[in-house]
Amino acid sequence: MTSTVRDTASRSSATKGFRHPGRVIAAAFATAIVVGTALLSLPIATAGEGRASLLQALFHATSAVCVTGLVTVDTGTYWSGFGQAVILLLIQAGGLGIMTLATLVALLLSRRLGLRARLIAQTETKAISAADVRRVVRAVVVFSLASEAVIATVLTIRFATGYDQPPSSALYSGVFHAISAFNNAGFGLHPDSLMRYVADPWISLTVAAAVIVGGLGFPVVFELAREWRAPKTWSVLTRITVIVTAALLAAGTIGYLIAEADNPDTLGPLGPGTTVMAAFVAAAMPRTAGFNNLDIAALDPETLFLTDVLMFIGGGSAGTAGGIKVTTFGLLAYVLWAEMRGDPDVEVGRRRVPGANQRQALAIALLAIGVIAVSTFVLEALTDFSFDQVLFEVISAFSTVGLSTGITADVPAAGQVLLVLLMYIGRIGPLTLASGLALRERARRHQLPEERTIVG
Amino acid sequence: MTSTVRDTASRSSATKGFRHPGRVIAAAFATAIVVGTALLSLPIATAGEGRASLLQALFHATSAVCVTGLVTVDTGTYWSGFGQAVILLLIQAGGLGIMTLATLVALLLSRRLGLRARLIAQTETKAISAADVRRVVRAVVVFSLASEAVIATVLTIRFATGYDQPPSSALYSGVFHAISAFNNAGFGLHPDSLMRYVADPWISLTVAAAVIVGGLGFPVVFELAREWRAPKTWSVLTRITVIVTAALLAAGTIGYLIAEADNPDTLGPLGPGTTVMAAFVAAAMPRTAGFNNLDIAALDPETLFLTDVLMFIGGGSAGTAGGIKVTTFGLLAYVLWAEMRGDPDVEVGRRRVPGANQRQALAIALLAIGVIAVSTFVLEALTDFSFDQVLFEVISAFSTVGLSTGITADVPAAGQVLLVLLMYIGRIGPLTLASGLALRERARRHQLPEERTIVG
Ligand SMILES: [K+]
Ligand SMILES: [K+]
Repeated sequence: MTSTVRDTASRSSATKGFRHPGRVIAAAFATAIVVGTALLSLPIATAGEGRASLLQALFHATSAVCVTGLVTVDTGTYWSGFGQAVILLLIQAGGLGIMTLATLVALLLSRRLGLRARLIAQTETKAISAADVRRVVRAVVVFSLASEAVIATVLTIRFATGYDQPPSSALYSGVFHAISAFNNAGFGLHPDSLMRYVADPWISLTVAAAVIVGGLGFPVVFELAREWRAPKTWSVLTRITVIVTAALLAAGTIGYLIAEADNPDTLGPLGPGTTVMAAFVAAAMPRTAGFNNLDIAALDPETLFLTDVLMFIGGGSAGTAGGIKVTTFGLLAYVLWAEMRGDPDVEVGRRRVPGANQRQALAIALLAIGVIAVSTFVLEALTDFSFDQVLFEVISAFSTVGLSTGITADVPAAGQVLLVLLMYIGRIGPLTLASGLALRERARRHQLPEERTIVG
Repeated sequence: MTSTVRDTASRSSATKGFRHPGRVIAAAFATAIVVGTALLSLPIATAGEGRASLLQALFHATSAVCVTGLVTVDTGTYWSGFGQAVILLLIQAGGLGIMTLATLVALLLSRRLGLRARLIAQTETKAISAADVRRVVRAVVVFSLASEAVIATVLTIRFATGYDQPPSSALYSGVFHAISAFNNAGFGLHPDSLMRYVADPWISLTVAAAVIVGGLGFPVVFELAREWRAPKTWSVLTRITVIVTAALLAAGTIGYLIAEADNPDTLGPLGPGTTVMAAFVAAAMPRTAGFNNLDIAALDPETLFLTDVLMFIGGGSAGTAGGIKVTTFGLLAYVLWAEMRGDPDVEVGRRRVPGANQRQALAIALLAIGVIAVSTFVLEALTDFSFDQVLFEVISAFSTVGLSTGITADVPAAGQVLLVLLMYIGRIGPLTLASGLALRERARRHQLPEERTIVG
């Protein structure tokens, strides 16, 4: 884990114009949450009489901006058309914001990251110019809107032809679910999320595809689009993301099949083909879309735990997914593998991952475990819910998943404030932490004598 | 995390006579379990009619040898005097065995460990001779038996004077509980473990002290006995062990007080002084003694979770405690702290801990999490117990704690076999893994180009 002495000179020029990405990201998300809270507090935001309480507005604004999807009311009936539009805009802003900012952070580290400055120019660059930022923003926006348009089209056609919805209603439903799915937000228009579509491959698989692509992260999608034929040239980032994403989808699907195939309230009543599809979709959702095609409250305890693990790991870096990210998890797995084999180096593809990078992954995972452990203890002390319900809710909030066993609305005010904090920290924390750690590595000034300890 | 090239020549000479400690340890424990199973299967081992089933004998022999303390029957009434003597001998053999073997492994790594060959001779040694092994075994045996004698004396006097037990009964009870406590075995003679003594400081605090000292580990106790006045000279091992042990005892006590002070079935009815003492004792027991002074089944869910965390971390290396060990946990905390500060080196006291050592700690923690996660999923699928009961049972078995919410006897046969495997793996796993990793570090043969990934 010893890191080498860094060239501080080149680093300070590289950060020009985007000097403290952590603060920029934290401030941008806080601002969006404040504006969203104000808008959702307006009387016209609710469909019925009266208006949302401040906590209610704050909770849903945070849930939307952080693309989490935890709700205490039914989105489709509690909020007015205006309120739903605000939520949709907050989701879009949050999704675009995180993807843009995370990609810029990745660019800051691009030479070390092996992104090889593809996103900005083919030449070696030392700083990010205003033109580079514009180019990244434009690429992210075009990618997002184009993806959402395709998804919305498929969903709209299906809603109109398969469910006899009038065209305007089908279009609204299609656009809403497309934006919510691509941004991994998990807000739906039905109180049962997507459960009514569990046997419909057009809706289920389209939403799952949207969630997976949105959750891969922009740099990976960008690299895959250009070099999907040549896996040998993939960067470490893309290689780990693709491998771990595929492995988690496969393991999650198998786990859901094993645990739920005989559960009469979930997969049990479905036919064999539908069961496999539903298990696959259910395994895609915790990472970290937050829609559910199965009734979370009816899942067996071991399935809830499997879902906890999937939610904790989350999706790809620099995308709309939450969690510690597949890169963090995957890199730690590579470290473990190297350690078991006795290899001094950690190699991914034909590249060696430096010790400092491994240590960042360790730090992010440990901090996430610490935050979740303390929050679970606190929320359990504040409520009478069972341990698996509370643990699930905390991980869902921190990993910005949005799935729930159904307790969210009944969590007391102090607990809801804790969930708001978890969503915010979970959304901006790992990214700001990773960028902060990567940009701030200190040079070694003195060297103490070495000594080991026994562990284990 | 990059490790430096090692001098393979000196290593191979250092391991002479104890070449594959992992295999020796695994074989020694397996042998003791087989012998114990055979003895406990005899008709004379049980107090009543008939004899124990093979699974029952295997379960209790494993629980005793691995100093776990999980039981499916009441030790004091189900087993005969012969059966109880077998269990006591298995505990003593397991405790002495793990302490001796772990200390020898520590000696193998002694120059790197900073134990500075104190245990064997003041000169620099390159190999462990038969005389060194004898010296270590003798020191461990003397330390264990002397400690147990002191504890047994205090307990016997108290049982005789405070509870009107006849002298022979008080002596038997005192010796049994002393051996069980010092070896962190957690076997008791009452179905309620130590709950009846919750308000008795003589019994409670003596057992807690025995558990803590036995769980520190022999090298640490040895160093503390010689240099307790000079903390600045302490090795990294002793420094981390002392700091983390104190921190966990304090945090555990406070956590129990916060969570259970108002619970009418645990701390609630006790007076203020007794409450603090009981919370302290309760916090000492999960690391990893396995006695309980409070009713585990009556604990609030957040307290069970706190106990899960304490059990997972466990006690000191090269002692009778289980878990990933305080050194593993503490070293990871130091790594996290260094990473947060941006320090390239991890410094404990005035010593730098090498990257390879940090990576071992990471590997042990990750593997433990993996084993516990998979086992929890499997045991939950095999049973109908709640998630917190199953998670608690799995961590208790893997960390050789022996606490239970009361489900052990009702776990089906396949689940009990899983618990047997967990106790065995949990007992020998971290140590054999750590020694294997430390002794087997490979030299680097080629060096690939470096590349980073984003994490988080
Ligand atoms: K989400
Ligand atoms: K124990």
